[in-house]
Amino acid sequence: MAQKKIAVLGPGSWGTALSQVLNDNGHEVRIWGNIPEQIAEINNKHTNTHFFKDIVLDDKIKAYDDLKQTLADVEAILFVVPTKVTRLVAKQVAEVLDHKVVIMHASKGLEQGTHKRISTILEEEIPSDLRSEIVVVSGPSHAEETIVRDLTLITAASKNHADAKFVQELFSNDYFRLYTTDDVIGVETAAALKNVIAVGAGALHGLGFGDNAKAAIITRGLAEITRLGVAMGANPMTYIGLSGVGDLIVTGTSVHSRNWRAGDALGRGEKLADIEANMGMIIEGISTTKVAHELAQTMHIDMPITDAIYSVIYENKDIRESIVTLMRREARSENEYIIEIKGLN
Amino acid sequence: MAQKKIAVLGPGSWGTALSQVLNDNGHEVRIWGNIPEQIAEINNKHTNTHFFKDIVLDDKIKAYDDLKQTLADVEAILFVVPTKVTRLVAKQVAEVLDHKVVIMHASKGLEQGTHKRISTILEEEIPSDLRSEIVVVSGPSHAEETIVRDLTLITAASKNHADAKFVQELFSNDYFRLYTTDDVIGVETAAALKNVIAVGAGALHGLGFGDNAKAAIITRGLAEITRLGVAMGANPMTYIGLSGVGDLIVTGTSVHSRNWRAGDALGRGEKLADIEANMGMIIEGISTTKVAHELAQTMHIDMPITDAIYSVIYENKDIRESIVTLMRREARSENEYIIEIKGLN
Repeated sequence: MAQKKIAVLGPGSWGTALSQVLNDNGHEVRIWGNIPEQIAEINNKHTNTHFFKDIVLDDKIKAYDDLKQTLADVEAILFVVPTKVTRLVAKQVAEVLDHKVVIMHASKGLEQGTHKRISTILEEEIPSDLRSEIVVVSGPSHAEETIVRDLTLITAASKNHADAKFVQELFSNDYFRLYTTDDVIGVETAAALKNVIAVGAGALHGLGFGDNAKAAIITRGLAEITRLGVAMGANPMTYIGLSGVGDLIVTGTSVHSRNWRAGDALGRGEKLADIEANMGMIIEGISTTKVAHELAQTMHIDMPITDAIYSVIYENKDIRESIVTLMRREARSENEYIIEIKGLN
Repeated sequence: MAQKKIAVLGPGSWGTALSQVLNDNGHEVRIWGNIPEQIAEINNKHTNTHFFKDIVLDDKIKAYDDLKQTLADVEAILFVVPTKVTRLVAKQVAEVLDHKVVIMHASKGLEQGTHKRISTILEEEIPSDLRSEIVVVSGPSHAEETIVRDLTLITAASKNHADAKFVQELFSNDYFRLYTTDDVIGVETAAALKNVIAVGAGALHGLGFGDNAKAAIITRGLAEITRLGVAMGANPMTYIGLSGVGDLIVTGTSVHSRNWRAGDALGRGEKLADIEANMGMIIEGISTTKVAHELAQTMHIDMPITDAIYSVIYENKDIRESIVTLMRREARSENEYIIEIKGLN
């Protein structure tokens, strides 16, 4: 693939790691952010030490604070900002963008209040004559591993296959591989909802439970987020793929995951405000828990793990009692633990 | 449930942990084994230090070396011996058993040569007038956690619901919970085949790969073992339940798993014979890899991970080349990573 100019909006850990992948592939990468010290650090020292202490980036990767300058003549824009500012940044992009580009995003959340998916926000804010169909880049991927070029396999989802294919080629190399799918709803809902289950798995660990209990909550969590995702229009099979169970495994079993660590800290009795302050990064699973809980209520989907975590975070319920009650409650068969799909069985 | 007399055949780590669960529930437990020193140790010191260094068992748990004496007036027999000796032990049971009992097993493998499931072996060797339908006890469960009474949730599978229900009640308590299912084929094939994928996940770790790659191989592994299981008659949904993805997570991500550790050692360049000698326990995944490879060939199922591990173990292929080739091979869409079920997309 010929060299492309690409804007990466958001110099967080994942934005930085993806910028390095694109730069490794010979593309011109422009990282845009709004913290002047961070922009200066990337340009002058070629580091982003808030996220990666020991990593030196290629000096061809440039950072910008002016959005219009960033977007001038780029062929593609990757949104990788926190969910809660996606709409705001998309509005700013729509104001200054003057040519058609491929729009991608790699964020994992659902909008507070509206319950909308990120691609929906981008579709609403960026006029269709200025953009491709949205392409979602998502899957099991710790930035800490991708930044050291460890093998990572994820998905590129779009309603338009050519757009997904373009993004696949943009990113794919020896250590970073993308697989295309057209199930945008499945990939986006799985990406967001698995963070809720990761908080639950972390909480179990923080409470002192082991791997057997962790496997049980992840399995049951997969079933409940699939129920909600399918009700929202997802293909259930996506939940058994890389961006579903794959991402759930990496998020629910690894100390690299900030959602898992937030749950772990909750389990050990820390207060949410302290956890968020100490992390210094956005914990998407906390706000996604609220959205998922509201969606479950509206759509009448049974989501006991989500409800238990919601009650701990937002209703100040005792975490041990909530989680232990959940794991020990009576059940007559394994139905709660499997994904029920109409037409099977 | 009233107190029952139960024979546990096999004083391995899982047999010992399950004996303690049954004893905790007030049942009379008789462990049978054929190593005189081990039997004496359990009866005299109430320990089984080959498997659990620091655990003292209740002195009500008795060990026996005489099978006829063990089985006299028991209401249920739990087989938890290595797959390769299951048929031999079943023949011995059939010779001395003189009354009808509930037959359970908690082993995870497939028979070499015949490719048969363990319940099939038991059905063949024990006359039907002496037994219930076989009940399979399986799921995400490290013995090391169950023995310290950490929360464990697994499945009890039987063609006969009343038999599954009996076993559910026999074992269930505050820390150990069973869910019933009728998909014996699904539970037994998932239990056996996930060990192959755990060897692969361990091998990736031993070769130096991280959590992103681990999640990818587990996801892809789940798809390929489901393909084989479904071809053998399993309900695909079982593979997404506790005894499928649940057990795969616990086996494929935890250092407690001997299959994972065997793969990890292979990845670090150790020889299989040394690994088996050092482990001092049966590594079911090694022999299951051979059975799965043969089944895949006979049934024309695409199982690239199984084939790669087979080529390393049985054809002396280079592990780095085999695994890396596998993870990096070209693929056009995510189809390889999802479970294809007829009638769904």
